[in-house]
Amino acid sequence: MILNSNKPSPDPNVPKAVVSRLSLYLRELQQLLRVGKKTISSSKLGGRLGITDAQVRKDFAYFGQFGYPGIGYRCEELVIEIRRILGTDRTWPVALIGCGNLGQALLGYRGFGKQGFEVVLAFDIDPNIVGQTFEGLTVIHLSEMAEQVKRHQVRLAILAVPAKAANQAVDSLVEAGITGFLNFAPVTLNLPKSVSVVGVDLAMELEQLAFAVIKQGQATK
Amino acid sequence: MILNSNKPSPDPNVPKAVVSRLSLYLRELQQLLRVGKKTISSSKLGGRLGITDAQVRKDFAYFGQFGYPGIGYRCEELVIEIRRILGTDRTWPVALIGCGNLGQALLGYRGFGKQGFEVVLAFDIDPNIVGQTFEGLTVIHLSEMAEQVKRHQVRLAILAVPAKAANQAVDSLVEAGITGFLNFAPVTLNLPKSVSVVGVDLAMELEQLAFAVIKQGQATK
Repeated sequence: MILNSNKPSPDPNVPKAVVSRLSLYLRELQQLLRVGKKTISSSKLGGRLGITDAQVRKDFAYFGQFGYPGIGYRCEELVIEIRRILGTDRTWPVALIGCGNLGQALLGYRGFGKQGFEVVLAFDIDPNIVGQTFEGLTVIHLSEMAEQVKRHQVRLAILAVPAKAANQAVDSLVEAGITGFLNFAPVTLNLPKSVSVVGVDLAMELEQLAFAVIKQGQATK
Repeated sequence: MILNSNKPSPDPNVPKAVVSRLSLYLRELQQLLRVGKKTISSSKLGGRLGITDAQVRKDFAYFGQFGYPGIGYRCEELVIEIRRILGTDRTWPVALIGCGNLGQALLGYRGFGKQGFEVVLAFDIDPNIVGQTFEGLTVIHLSEMAEQVKRHQVRLAILAVPAKAANQAVDSLVEAGITGFLNFAPVTLNLPKSVSVVGVDLAMELEQLAFAVIKQGQATK
């Protein structure tokens, strides 16, 4: 078996759950590389994430053949392949819409840069915020958005505005060329089908934690 | 088939991926209820989430029999059951550790309250922040944490401190009785096995978005 190098397009029918597991595999492989590990089997990779080895192999099979008989996966190669599949083998310029507390926190969030995302534009409408500089980035008034988004060829936007401002903001963003939104506003966005949205629901993470705490409490009784 | 009402303990071997899908099902069912829908089939529920009907049924089978032949799932009943399974059929008091930009943004995040989580304590060490009131909650100095966490019987904490402060903070929090952390600090926490952690990695959400944008771009070519 050889590393698939003819870079197939992502299968449009890949289930979302598979794509989200690719991110999990990627983080785990990046962690393994940091501690000096060069190869890993599907069962060990899955074991670290609570996923069966069959599922691991099935997930990767959507995109190609990445394993080597008797060796397993080569961590560094697989990191490169997953980043290529996810599209994070390049740096994506990102526009941040809304620079209140959440927006400012996101500007300081170092995890984005590490994974190939760079916030290059930050917008707000509040006269107390526009013109201020956070993490080296000066906040621009939203009225200049269309021109700036086009000039920087930005396609991804992080939406960190209040719920009531969200839908108004996205209309002009889509017009300016944004085709993907990471949405922190607790509201459903009305968007054309050609635009992708990933909603961030932090309560889901707390639910997972509540379940884990209950389970742990029962296991240690 | 009847609704399982003898409240089994969560199977300790339930895969994490299944539990995280429970949160997805819950949000979808809550949304269906809001638009007045009373029942839904496993295939329709799965279809809205890009999950096969077989997977939907298998996921719920870990916890009991919730469907009715010829009817499907009763949305309201299933919401109650999932909240019971996840442990969010009660309100969890939560401590927020760190009230900088991210902490303040999280205090204003309304999604927590809706799903059964109430931030009842907020801590910091910065003299400019301690004593300030955000969203009706006055920030307490971290030195009072142990007493306050015990008094309010808090078991869940949201960690929104800088990476270098995280591991020092968690030691005393575990001693005070915290058994679950939602960790926003970009660092691995050294914790005893009896303590649960859910890490929030916002770059993963951006990766999913990048993939969706690329896929969409190819589909519309």
